[in-house]
Amino acid sequence: MKALRLESWHSEPRLRDVPLPEPGPGQVRVQLGGAGACHSDLHLMDEFSDGVLPWGPPFTLGHENAGWVHRLGEGVVGLEPGQPVAVVGAWGCGSCRRCLAGLETYCDRPDLAPAPGGGGGLGLDGGMAEYMVVPSARHLVPLPEGLHPADAAPLTDAALTPYHAVRRSREKLVPGSVAVVIGIGGLGHLAVQVLRATSAAYVVAVDPRASARELATRSGADLALPPGEDLVAQVRAAGHGLGADVVLDMVGSDDTLATSAAVARQLADITVVGIGGGSLPFSFFGVPYEASVQTTYWGNRSELVEVLDLASRGLLHAETTRFSLDDAAHAYELLRRGEVDGRAVVVAHESWTP
Amino acid sequence: MKALRLESWHSEPRLRDVPLPEPGPGQVRVQLGGAGACHSDLHLMDEFSDGVLPWGPPFTLGHENAGWVHRLGEGVVGLEPGQPVAVVGAWGCGSCRRCLAGLETYCDRPDLAPAPGGGGGLGLDGGMAEYMVVPSARHLVPLPEGLHPADAAPLTDAALTPYHAVRRSREKLVPGSVAVVIGIGGLGHLAVQVLRATSAAYVVAVDPRASARELATRSGADLALPPGEDLVAQVRAAGHGLGADVVLDMVGSDDTLATSAAVARQLADITVVGIGGGSLPFSFFGVPYEASVQTTYWGNRSELVEVLDLASRGLLHAETTRFSLDDAAHAYELLRRGEVDGRAVVVAHESWTP
Amino acid sequence: MKALRLESWHSEPRLRDVPLPEPGPGQVRVQLGGAGACHSDLHLMDEFSDGVLPWGPPFTLGHENAGWVHRLGEGVVGLEPGQPVAVVGAWGCGSCRRCLAGLETYCDRPDLAPAPGGGGGLGLDGGMAEYMVVPSARHLVPLPEGLHPADAAPLTDAALTPYHAVRRSREKLVPGSVAVVIGIGGLGHLAVQVLRATSAAYVVAVDPRASARELATRSGADLALPPGEDLVAQVRAAGHGLGADVVLDMVGSDDTLATSAAVARQLADITVVGIGGGSLPFSFFGVPYEASVQTTYWGNRSELVEVLDLASRGLLHAETTRFSLDDAAHAYELLRRGEVDGRAVVVAHESWTP
Amino acid sequence: MKALRLESWHSEPRLRDVPLPEPGPGQVRVQLGGAGACHSDLHLMDEFSDGVLPWGPPFTLGHENAGWVHRLGEGVVGLEPGQPVAVVGAWGCGSCRRCLAGLETYCDRPDLAPAPGGGGGLGLDGGMAEYMVVPSARHLVPLPEGLHPADAAPLTDAALTPYHAVRRSREKLVPGSVAVVIGIGGLGHLAVQVLRATSAAYVVAVDPRASARELATRSGADLALPPGEDLVAQVRAAGHGLGADVVLDMVGSDDTLATSAAVARQLADITVVGIGGGSLPFSFFGVPYEASVQTTYWGNRSELVEVLDLASRGLLHAETTRFSLDDAAHAYELLRRGEVDGRAVVVAHESWTP
Repeated sequence: MKALRLESWHSEPRLRDVPLPEPGPGQVRVQLGGAGACHSDLHLMDEFSDGVLPWGPPFTLGHENAGWVHRLGEGVVGLEPGQPVAVVGAWGCGSCRRCLAGLETYCDRPDLAPAPGGGGGLGLDGGMAEYMVVPSARHLVPLPEGLHPADAAPLTDAALTPYHAVRRSREKLVPGSVAVVIGIGGLGHLAVQVLRATSAAYVVAVDPRASARELATRSGADLALPPGEDLVAQVRAAGHGLGADVVLDMVGSDDTLATSAAVARQLADITVVGIGGGSLPFSFFGVPYEASVQTTYWGNRSELVEVLDLASRGLLHAETTRFSLDDAAHAYELLRRGEVDGRAVVVAHESWTP
Repeated sequence: MKALRLESWHSEPRLRDVPLPEPGPGQVRVQLGGAGACHSDLHLMDEFSDGVLPWGPPFTLGHENAGWVHRLGEGVVGLEPGQPVAVVGAWGCGSCRRCLAGLETYCDRPDLAPAPGGGGGLGLDGGMAEYMVVPSARHLVPLPEGLHPADAAPLTDAALTPYHAVRRSREKLVPGSVAVVIGIGGLGHLAVQVLRATSAAYVVAVDPRASARELATRSGADLALPPGEDLVAQVRAAGHGLGADVVLDMVGSDDTLATSAAVARQLADITVVGIGGGSLPFSFFGVPYEASVQTTYWGNRSELVEVLDLASRGLLHAETTRFSLDDAAHAYELLRRGEVDGRAVVVAHESWTP
Repeated sequence: MKALRLESWHSEPRLRDVPLPEPGPGQVRVQLGGAGACHSDLHLMDEFSDGVLPWGPPFTLGHENAGWVHRLGEGVVGLEPGQPVAVVGAWGCGSCRRCLAGLETYCDRPDLAPAPGGGGGLGLDGGMAEYMVVPSARHLVPLPEGLHPADAAPLTDAALTPYHAVRRSREKLVPGSVAVVIGIGGLGHLAVQVLRATSAAYVVAVDPRASARELATRSGADLALPPGEDLVAQVRAAGHGLGADVVLDMVGSDDTLATSAAVARQLADITVVGIGGGSLPFSFFGVPYEASVQTTYWGNRSELVEVLDLASRGLLHAETTRFSLDDAAHAYELLRRGEVDGRAVVVAHESWTP
Repeated sequence: MKALRLESWHSEPRLRDVPLPEPGPGQVRVQLGGAGACHSDLHLMDEFSDGVLPWGPPFTLGHENAGWVHRLGEGVVGLEPGQPVAVVGAWGCGSCRRCLAGLETYCDRPDLAPAPGGGGGLGLDGGMAEYMVVPSARHLVPLPEGLHPADAAPLTDAALTPYHAVRRSREKLVPGSVAVVIGIGGLGHLAVQVLRATSAAYVVAVDPRASARELATRSGADLALPPGEDLVAQVRAAGHGLGADVVLDMVGSDDTLATSAAVARQLADITVVGIGGGSLPFSFFGVPYEASVQTTYWGNRSELVEVLDLASRGLLHAETTRFSLDDAAHAYELLRRGEVDGRAVVVAHESWTP
């Protein structure tokens, strides 16, 4: 079968012919219907070298995947060929306390996972191919009716990540609360949609680009503001003079982190989703009392079930541009040049092919 | 001033002239802009007699109140005359653990409250009058912009009660969950609206009356069903074969309680809001594992802040029919005959009158 | 190898020679070091017949098991032969939402589980044998240092069940709260120990037997009372006049359920652990406002990790009487006659035998 | 009456004769039985000047107070003269959302509070006197039996502050979890006691002083370590190789903040209690995934009820040295020189004097 391979660090991926992978006991082979091309794949191509990560090339790219169950390994129950599924991307050891609570992103024993801190498309063969093997049925979520794998694939990362960040703060997102989303890109506009669909919080989007603010408004933001001198005052005004209950920093630069702390009120959650390389000097009087600062990373299977439910009911939607598998390498080129509208999705199969 | 007085048990209320009440230290006099006429007032008129409750007539009716701050008692800060406010109806002792956590409905020392288990319109003088005195500024919630006291008044009970019931289950109301509301009357249709506004749960309304099911659908229910043989199967089908995560029984009869237990899944919340006099025989295998059964009663100030925020943003709306104070006794007659559309609200003042 | 087999409903178990079971892919063979004899096994022998449960004899008894890893099936990582482990008894499908959140007791797809609603010793071969096969490594918890499998085995049920019941109420078990445990038998005295170790609640034990009350006091109860007229008043006195915040009914009879509701305060948790066949007529004014009534069933892997941690630190201890595998049938006879002190544990191997 | 007055910034306090204060409506006069001398009072004397805080001298010192109800203002119910009480120190506006949820430390409208961000002994007259007036009955907690006001007074701050910090993390303090307390001084050793009394977490204390480590061990720590190269490895070893679930930094210097982040695991709580002037550079890969960093400040009335319950049952104990009111100024001198064993408490009345 064809697969888009990253063959070495510091190289462009190549479409290659590779053997059709066979699922071992407990494993499942998926026929791919969608594989999202993610900016982080460009980082993989450009910025890493031997020994930095506990895994490396060669492997097939693609860590945002969906398709149809194709072949069940020995002992797999509850799935049948042709069933549309999304793939949960974070594969932990499956037996530690975190994994058994469903938090494979925070696996306590990554050394026992299929690829430590990695997964399909991240050290192991991913979904930029005709087929991929998923190491356990627990990593598959049946797609709700009406959701095509090509639309589901990017949600497994671009929607799941902000969904997890929002969900951990749901206790604070009561009616009358203020949620601020800083950076309205691929993940940020989905964060706005998640807030809109699952809470009655007042949503303030922050982005210097007018087009991004329009996207925020279309996504359901109550207010869209550029950063600047007045921002803190405007957020406070929206929040009864008090500031934001929840801040999601989708950028993570020095500037956005400083803004996050400045707009937050006492007891707020300030959650850093974007890996922008910034730093916030945390000190006793530098952030409001008991406002908590934390990162988050991706999401888990239960959360993906919830994300897909929202999408199937029209409450969550990611814009996509589809590419054939033959054009997958080209999709990354366009992505690198910033010329893709919405999320680039590589579609190896338009529909289930027994 | 004029006030609608319940002068004795087993009597109709009468409009009387009474002295203008003066606020003592810490108290606030409110100029009434709306006072809801509630079915429970009819029970007060009809069903009680001396010694049943720790309080009794004579008193002014009206426990769903809103208006404008009129005069501040000594020591009150943070309010000013003319400010529109809603009145929180449950008045506890203010110093016990429950009160200090904001749960005055469940006050541990009702013997120290202004009226044990009562309040304005329930043993003490309520809002069916030109003015009322509220015993502490903490029982007043400033109205958000654009919400008239006559629209806010019924929300302090008819919306606050289902809001509290929904809020305690919010952890279970994730996307993909199923919430069942049984009984789509004055409180039930607001329960549907609250679920719609604050969660992405799939909402199933149950009522034998076609008009009530239409109201449910207009209020945002995903599905509206009559009770009957197929109900359990239909709820299970909506819930991926598993049943309801949250059940709100707004009726509380033997039948609806049995239905509630039948549609619930393991770990569900079954919350009884309606005081229909029914009983559910709770036994180990009679309800699903760890499904919890509980009543709820009214709500608290923080929750009223949230309810009013929803209303001011158009996410929550109670139909009302307005009556003048002179027609207040008539409003109860119509209510008794079932001839009021929506909630009857007595409006003593259309607008603030210094 | 030798195994104690239940060969048909309504029969006594027999020690038989059976083939040594081989672990399939993902499975693990355990050399047994302890298998608890549970009263529910007597119910299995006496009260069931074909078609009542989705599984049935013949199978090896023993659903409270611990021992040493003996042989790993294909693909199992993170375990090694000789490692002492306890076996989590509830085996779900492993892929549904509940299982993936670690709640295999409440599996949504029991039809896909190894035995629907059952497990080792409950339809499948259990631990009253020299060896047993566990269907997944995720069901094994490494034993902390110093805890022998014979001591750990009964904890997997007799301690895990009350632990789960206590844990779900931990939010209410603040210092100054009152927890009432009704029925101080095998599970009840461990419930007291768990409350003592994990909270500063004031613990009241209730049992008609003086010896049981002494056991409660030794286990850490602050107060041990017989049921009777004064009980409610005494619990209220202990709870600042307010009643219990948490009630654990380890019996579940009509009487104990009525007592549970009577001693509870508003917002309490009333959790029914004992399957005594009783019923509580739940009605609006029959239980305090918002006191929740629910059953619980067994516990999960994370909770077993916590139980074993408590045991290894001396904070939780079950009295046991050890029997050889040859005497296993006799142990059940004694259990039936009420002649076992503490928990009967069948010990097939005193120590690891490669 | 006599009172220890701070008469201006940058001065030593003086014992003066002042008029006996009268309680207004809703207020309560307390006869003092204990007033703790706190290090933060030294900061008040030394480091502030006009305009830095929204309040200032002259006022009576003492913000850790307990005594007996002496005289009730108009309208106060539920208290009676002679009743022993502790004073909650943080006095908010009493009507904002935070105050009504019991969080007066985080009052949303400090401009409406008696002293913005202050209280008795902090801008208003405190407890280093024969009597003080508390502005509302809600700030008084009845003392449980057997607890003298002189023992209760320091608990209102030195125990309440770490109690609040521990309580917010109780979800993470399961058996088998690891809690690290950095800095075993007046608050730190009480943090250890609180952890011991309310959880089964494994408690690691960190302090460079051998005497402090001995105090930690006496207070119930499982392990007491000096800071240094091996610390992280030792904490990880205690925590099954994973690090701490909860870190309480009672110091708050650059060094301790860095240590806090280094010993924490994924999803940990890192709570900064000490105001040591340090800063932690928070960045995406600088702290473990989703480990949250926050400050905390003091505690609230419900928490003080819990603290006093622990103390009355012998589960929490602060060492104190008692001084007469005449010696109060001397107590501060000794405190400044580090010559007080335990907490200095000024005792104006040994017992209730009608």
